[in-house]
Amino acid sequence: MPAYQPPLRDLSFVLEEVLDVYTQFAKLPGFEDTTPDLGAAFLTEAGKFSEEVLAPLNRSGDEEGCHWSEDGVTAPSGFRDAYQQYVALGFPAFDQPTEFGGQGMPGVLGLAIREMLGTANWAWSMYPGLSHGCMHTIDEHGTPEQRATYLPKLVTGEWTGTMCLTESHCGTDLGMLRTKAEPRADGSYAITGTKIFISSGDHDMADNIVHVVLARLPDAPGGTKGISLFIVPKFLPAADGGVGARNGVACGSLEHKMGIHGNATCVMNFDGATGYLIGEENKGLNAMFTFMNAARIGTGQQGLAHAEFAFQNSLSYARERLQMRSLTGPKNADGPADPIIVHPDVRRMLLTQKAFAEGGRAFALYAGQLVDVARAHPEADERQRADDLLALLTPILKAFLTEVGFEAANHGLQCFGGHGYIAEWGMEQNVRDARISMLYEGTTGIQALDLLGRKVLGSRMKLLNALTDEIGAFCKQHARINSEARHQIKKLAELNKEWRKLTRKIGMTAMKDREIVGSASVDYLMYSGYVCVAYLFAKSSIAAQAGLDRGSDAGDEAFYTAKLQTAEFYYRRILPRTKTLAKTMLDDPKVLLQMGEGEFALGL
Amino acid sequence: MPAYQPPLRDLSFVLEEVLDVYTQFAKLPGFEDTTPDLGAAFLTEAGKFSEEVLAPLNRSGDEEGCHWSEDGVTAPSGFRDAYQQYVALGFPAFDQPTEFGGQGMPGVLGLAIREMLGTANWAWSMYPGLSHGCMHTIDEHGTPEQRATYLPKLVTGEWTGTMCLTESHCGTDLGMLRTKAEPRADGSYAITGTKIFISSGDHDMADNIVHVVLARLPDAPGGTKGISLFIVPKFLPAADGGVGARNGVACGSLEHKMGIHGNATCVMNFDGATGYLIGEENKGLNAMFTFMNAARIGTGQQGLAHAEFAFQNSLSYARERLQMRSLTGPKNADGPADPIIVHPDVRRMLLTQKAFAEGGRAFALYAGQLVDVARAHPEADERQRADDLLALLTPILKAFLTEVGFEAANHGLQCFGGHGYIAEWGMEQNVRDARISMLYEGTTGIQALDLLGRKVLGSRMKLLNALTDEIGAFCKQHARINSEARHQIKKLAELNKEWRKLTRKIGMTAMKDREIVGSASVDYLMYSGYVCVAYLFAKSSIAAQAGLDRGSDAGDEAFYTAKLQTAEFYYRRILPRTKTLAKTMLDDPKVLLQMGEGEFALGL
Repeated sequence: MPAYQPPLRDLSFVLEEVLDVYTQFAKLPGFEDTTPDLGAAFLTEAGKFSEEVLAPLNRSGDEEGCHWSEDGVTAPSGFRDAYQQYVALGFPAFDQPTEFGGQGMPGVLGLAIREMLGTANWAWSMYPGLSHGCMHTIDEHGTPEQRATYLPKLVTGEWTGTMCLTESHCGTDLGMLRTKAEPRADGSYAITGTKIFISSGDHDMADNIVHVVLARLPDAPGGTKGISLFIVPKFLPAADGGVGARNGVACGSLEHKMGIHGNATCVMNFDGATGYLIGEENKGLNAMFTFMNAARIGTGQQGLAHAEFAFQNSLSYARERLQMRSLTGPKNADGPADPIIVHPDVRRMLLTQKAFAEGGRAFALYAGQLVDVARAHPEADERQRADDLLALLTPILKAFLTEVGFEAANHGLQCFGGHGYIAEWGMEQNVRDARISMLYEGTTGIQALDLLGRKVLGSRMKLLNALTDEIGAFCKQHARINSEARHQIKKLAELNKEWRKLTRKIGMTAMKDREIVGSASVDYLMYSGYVCVAYLFAKSSIAAQAGLDRGSDAGDEAFYTAKLQTAEFYYRRILPRTKTLAKTMLDDPKVLLQMGEGEFALGL
Repeated sequence: MPAYQPPLRDLSFVLEEVLDVYTQFAKLPGFEDTTPDLGAAFLTEAGKFSEEVLAPLNRSGDEEGCHWSEDGVTAPSGFRDAYQQYVALGFPAFDQPTEFGGQGMPGVLGLAIREMLGTANWAWSMYPGLSHGCMHTIDEHGTPEQRATYLPKLVTGEWTGTMCLTESHCGTDLGMLRTKAEPRADGSYAITGTKIFISSGDHDMADNIVHVVLARLPDAPGGTKGISLFIVPKFLPAADGGVGARNGVACGSLEHKMGIHGNATCVMNFDGATGYLIGEENKGLNAMFTFMNAARIGTGQQGLAHAEFAFQNSLSYARERLQMRSLTGPKNADGPADPIIVHPDVRRMLLTQKAFAEGGRAFALYAGQLVDVARAHPEADERQRADDLLALLTPILKAFLTEVGFEAANHGLQCFGGHGYIAEWGMEQNVRDARISMLYEGTTGIQALDLLGRKVLGSRMKLLNALTDEIGAFCKQHARINSEARHQIKKLAELNKEWRKLTRKIGMTAMKDREIVGSASVDYLMYSGYVCVAYLFAKSSIAAQAGLDRGSDAGDEAFYTAKLQTAEFYYRRILPRTKTLAKTMLDDPKVLLQMGEGEFALGL
């Protein structure tokens, strides 16, 4: 049976020793009182909940799936109880604004908590997870009345939220959406249309579900400039703050999908449902973008969640499963064979999973730290700098971490041999669950266009320079460190330069041939991701070396040594992938474009 | 709904123009009468059967799965009827020996037929597919009586066969197996034990199932030197050649697995079942290896099958799905958006699938051609040369094609965006079905050790040189060709040299540190696979250029042009992956081995 243990030691290493978040909290108004002890207490409690309550429901949730009836959707057995516990423990409110009953804790700690929930049971974690986008949208763009009506219930977790964007004929291209919003005399709107792929769209876990819906007013201009945003609650709010009449929105059916079976992916029918405009008419898409950046960091985390889950379980298996002897003679001479962890190729797969889990964790929390700075730093310059970095990093983090997370999930399965293909071990579920992450919240291809087209070239490299300057300064500062990390700093400095050079070359080409942007985009994004994780691993190595230098107990010494070895593995066995990408991203776009559309199929 | 069209044009191109198989048949006794017209007629008929009968059962077979009861296993609806048609059409006998009722056709054409069956419905194709190993084993190692009893029924397809190797505690390491064979007075054996992961282990499609079972005699030496091979039929053969009494073997349960739901993966219980020794006592494993090489080419084909299926369906979708505009302005100005095939990154994914399907097809059929030469060529030297090449190529073909086939299946899913995750489109099934191929018949890691350890270094590079000499001569012969192919020939010659150089370096290192073999193996195998497919693409380009040069009709000209463009894509966007692999395979094994076993988990 698969199991999950919260990686508390690594989380505290990244938060305290690599990112030094608690020192930073002292400079952020509202977070000054968040001490390491307080943070650790929350993480421990969330880890315990994830391990003991959520992880045991992961396999059963996949097997049972969700249930549809005319009366609504029921989540798998145990999901509702777990959610009620989660609410009772106060987790939904953890990093929400105190104004609406939140605990006002830093977002980076909320992210660390959500990593554990999601690794233990990704499908379950999407029920509270989807509320974030909804809360964020209402908080940023809602009227004072809307905020007062919805946020207190969403913050406590009594109600959950969704985002209703996609229609069957448009996912990426939201400009084509058809759902209608007709104004009514009372200032509300009648919302009519069908949305698909609505995660957590209906369920029995909370008293109400607040949908944020993209729709079109009757006189709206075509395309993305005619999209407005509406709140459409499942039950209309009553005067006392509770739930009132049932609204005209219902789940028409559940999608049959590859994985995340425990989460209800709904076709949602809006049949003249009452909706309330959020923000300005026809400005809905801009409002969505603020939300999507936040959601994309969460989805990026899904990659490292599946990498961590794969790693923990394939590690246990590799230490127990006896099969063949080491090439250099028996390592378990008294047993019938050696544990497969003695085989270098099994170690290559384990270390790849470990590197993507730990490197991904550091990368996601680094972004989480920037979110706190962008929101709460007293100086505008600092907020702007964090915002710039986030604009650049978000598409990288989302697409890169989910791509390598899927790779890691597959390595985990592979370590089990044929048993990995069998459901009871949980590794094939992990692969199926991971596969959605490269699709939703914008596919890898869409993230890549956002990165290269909009963020990097669109800012004339300003956003990229914000990061490469930071990395350059870091490399300079640590150029003379006396340990294995020195090799890493040197390599990172080279790649940091090459990254800028490659970008300039693409930029030059794009002036003559705009197609290079699409032709290079995914290779460019993956290259960027490898460099970003290399940066975080170099930072981790510096912190680990500092730990060794200041003298630690034996347990800590072993931890720091393993951290340096994981970084070394990453630099030597993973990072050379940039060599291929640096070559292919610059290839002439004609190689992709020259084939006539009808000629693709001539082999048939 | 997913669909399948047989790639008849590409198959005939590879067989006739690239490999020139019909000219070769004229030199192989027994195959002299196989003309291109005859071959094409069989391929057309098999293609029609695959498209019209098997493909429509692919999704339904996945959804329904197999059914277990005390009385035995039932395949999904329609599977039995399709199998009866297949038998009636005479396909099982196609490339089987005439001595036992076979049609004695060349194996390379049998392989081409099996590609189509498998692409249309891999789970179904495993029912007749597993018979091959069984027939091959009985034919090579059985007594005349055993051959006369079993082969006629297996050749016609009235009976099917299985291979029963794996036990729950041993897959790769067959030396540990525990199934017992107790000699009986009548010369038969009582077989007792439990086998797992037995594909097509029980079903309702044929009158009898002939299991080939690995087991241990009471006095057998430990390890792999104490394994013997037995025939254990589900029903004992009756004197009249039909089926007699039920034997003591039954399916205990079906595995719940990630994919290939239409195929019954059985736990098989042998309860004092009557078995008949094949070959010599304690020499079972050697006999298995002959079989496994043949089976591995078939499994390698699974990779290209899933690549082809992904390609065909994602191509249709990409031509129909309208989403966003081309970066260089609308290409479908009258429509609401452009078809997604205008986007370079979608084309990158389509061309990757196409390249792996077409390159994989050429690679598999090249190996199939060698199998025919190794069996039927009148000159011993030629047979030996073909045998040597096959020994080298088989692990590459099996592991490389399944790895890139899985990649291609995922690109196919990705082209559908969120819809790719939904079952009805068939793309997620294709990914799930593809995933088994890197596990069974020896994992990628096992193939890689076989290649580098046993075949390449074990032969002191003799087997490798057989291929690199052939490639070297080919490059020399075509060095001056006047077309895009020239660039390919030049690149191939460089890689061919680099391949030898890398091998020598690993060989030198291995003398001091044997762990390099495991540390380098998978990267070495993947590198080898990219070079092999580059060789086949260069051969294809030469053939396509010849087609253009001799003047063709417009349809053929477009086909040849697309073939050259696909090869160019492969050389420019895929082949640079060797850059990374050439670097990582030489890395010091200590980077994988230095971490203490207990230190992997210190982050928890």
